Amino acid sequence: METLIALGKKAKQAERQLAQASSIAKNEALILMAEGLLNDTDKIIEANKKDTEAAKENGISESLLDRLTLTQERVEAMAQGLKDIAKLPDPIGLVESMWTNDAGLKIGKQSVPLGVIGIIYEARPNVTSDAAGLCFKSGNVVILRGGKEAFNSNLAVVTSLRASLEGSTLPETAIQLVEDTSRDSANEMMKLNRYLDVLIPRGGANLIKAVVENATVPVIETGTGNCHVYIDQSAQLEMATDIIVNAKTDRPSVCNAAETLLIHKDVAEDYLPVIEEALNEWKVELRADEASQKHLKAFTPATEADWETEYLDYILAVKVVDSLDEAIEHINRYSTGHSEAIVTNDYFAGQRFHREVDSAAVYVNASTRYTDGFEFGFGAEIGISTQKLHARGPMGLPELTSSKYIIFGEGQTR
Amino acid sequence: METLIALGKKAKQAERQLAQASSIAKNEALILMAEGLLNDTDKIIEANKKDTEAAKENGISESLLDRLTLTQERVEAMAQGLKDIAKLPDPIGLVESMWTNDAGLKIGKQSVPLGVIGIIYEARPNVTSDAAGLCFKSGNVVILRGGKEAFNSNLAVVTSLRASLEGSTLPETAIQLVEDTSRDSANEMMKLNRYLDVLIPRGGANLIKAVVENATVPVIETGTGNCHVYIDQSAQLEMATDIIVNAKTDRPSVCNAAETLLIHKDVAEDYLPVIEEALNEWKVELRADEASQKHLKAFTPATEADWETEYLDYILAVKVVDSLDEAIEHINRYSTGHSEAIVTNDYFAGQRFHREVDSAAVYVNASTRYTDGFEFGFGAEIGISTQKLHARGPMGLPELTSSKYIIFGEGQTR
Repeated sequence: METLIALGKKAKQAERQLAQASSIAKNEALILMAEGLLNDTDKIIEANKKDTEAAKENGISESLLDRLTLTQERVEAMAQGLKDIAKLPDPIGLVESMWTNDAGLKIGKQSVPLGVIGIIYEARPNVTSDAAGLCFKSGNVVILRGGKEAFNSNLAVVTSLRASLEGSTLPETAIQLVEDTSRDSANEMMKLNRYLDVLIPRGGANLIKAVVENATVPVIETGTGNCHVYIDQSAQLEMATDIIVNAKTDRPSVCNAAETLLIHKDVAEDYLPVIEEALNEWKVELRADEASQKHLKAFTPATEADWETEYLDYILAVKVVDSLDEAIEHINRYSTGHSEAIVTNDYFAGQRFHREVDSAAVYVNASTRYTDGFEFGFGAEIGISTQKLHARGPMGLPELTSSKYIIFGEGQTR
Repeated sequence: METLIALGKKAKQAERQLAQASSIAKNEALILMAEGLLNDTDKIIEANKKDTEAAKENGISESLLDRLTLTQERVEAMAQGLKDIAKLPDPIGLVESMWTNDAGLKIGKQSVPLGVIGIIYEARPNVTSDAAGLCFKSGNVVILRGGKEAFNSNLAVVTSLRASLEGSTLPETAIQLVEDTSRDSANEMMKLNRYLDVLIPRGGANLIKAVVENATVPVIETGTGNCHVYIDQSAQLEMATDIIVNAKTDRPSVCNAAETLLIHKDVAEDYLPVIEEALNEWKVELRADEASQKHLKAFTPATEADWETEYLDYILAVKVVDSLDEAIEHINRYSTGHSEAIVTNDYFAGQRFHREVDSAAVYVNASTRYTDGFEFGFGAEIGISTQKLHARGPMGLPELTSSKYIIFGEGQTR
């Protein structure tokens, strides 16, 4: 088993070659990797069985087991993902602006890879090929550190990807897997400033928190989503119902699902019973504040903790607010800064919500479920940043780049 | 003396108001602050005397004492700096791109402030007004933590700025000074994730290193510059001499000054004596590798440490290289990723240098001294980033912003 420092050194060696790789070379390699995954489907599924069987013995939950499981279809989807990445425009080498300064220097700002990206993630083995493909396309070397539950699957996927790279013009060390899945390896990775340019954690709130609190490597914080839908007094009932039902129930386990419904006091009495009925079809449990309780048939009284919780389940906190101000105040206090929506017919309420809500994606009259790199039209997504530095919101290929200034002089001195 | 947490809480309270402040309100406040500094010149200089006298007693070096000293002229320059910042375009509220996605949502990416910015800096009290002005203009609250040598000066400057803010429509808590200048306060600030969105260290290599190694708050690493000039075999002697002399001697104490000269073996014999003579006018000490020693009259033999050192002084490391490859290899190994220049007449050598050198600013035929927000035409500079995340190279007002997506829907659900 190689040490993290050994992996880091190899990554640094591959960095320059990968940064300068042509779009053609990268895309050809991505296609080879996709074909390799298809050819290795049996091996990958076999390795995955070891993981799922161990997981069952350990009494893993159904939903986690589902995330962990690879089927032929899922491997095909991973391969298709790599082919799709190959088709996206190359984010490297763009000179988006160039100007001439007072001294006559031509100064261009050119996109370049970040360098070596570390990804710490949990149970889903499809993240392995996905993240590897996106980092590769953007000219970055990647060091992947998946969860121990998925280790055999991850190893099989990475072995396949690297075998395909051997047939390409680019180094197989562009994609590396940390084989030590102990907590120590994660902790060591968080301090690996010498070899890592950035660390992206993908997973649950606890993982993200641990990385943010301990890492000295620059981190892009992703994915924790305590998202809100606020129904203004001017909202249309039908639109409000559609949006909260969609935001809560379309896929409750993902970060852009709504966790709290805020509703203006003037429409609580009329709207809440209709909304409750609609949510009942999905057996959504309501955690209601005092004011909303009188308009609901079934509920659990909400506590302070409910405003802070990302349920990722068929549970919704409900609170009646006196005003748009109170709604915005509540959101800015409890939100993780991911996605929030207002439903309103009032032009100025929408303007204020856009301006005053401090989150990565702020919606007027649409479901929070659209916060997603594919839905936004980026063609890819490495995660959704909830921090303000470097990138905020869905991150596609451009968010995996840095820049450098290239300067053309003719002998200028100051 | 207020605790950092107390300062952080006040900063968070001011954050929303500042983020939404109009350009007019911010610019008016900046002018008030500039006028306030002029009115308070005597007080500020008096406070500064306490610092400089204490520094003299402690046997501070001449150059540090110079940085620490405020004169009427320097206070005027600080005030002019604030007026200049008022004239710059507001970086907040720009929607640089907006598009319609497949579902018909209009999605706009809008610039917003980062939030609360912490600045840890050393002896120069002019950084106080400068950083405060730039953070303020970009709608950010700032928590300043200067060095203890400059504490009385910094306190006088901040007291003046805040008094001016009292006469404005914006909260004086937008600008905060940490009064505890112990090492503990710096360490606490590095972990103040709850209240700080980003931490920018400005100062010497040791300060930067300590912040990068210890901070869990997102950091923008600035300013360490082990910069190189490489003289290619095709370089014109006169241009090569001008550029290395300028890069080394124009202002040796700053981060964009050159620290190492690399020269191609084919021109070492002819060029080094001429360059040595030119550098002699500035009494530049040469730390020479073996191959260059035979072409120099006076030198100290270079050791490995010389390739890594940012002298910030009239000292230059000199090394003969066999090829452009060796020059690039050397730079990518020892550079801090700040600024590097090649002097060449060869088109392809310039192309390769631009592509393969992994630094924030890569020059063909110009002095590294141009790496500066003002020289680049940004009209301001908060520092020069040597990291790849968020910003790289000179940072102006746009680098003090984040973004959010504002989305206009008409009831869309997934």
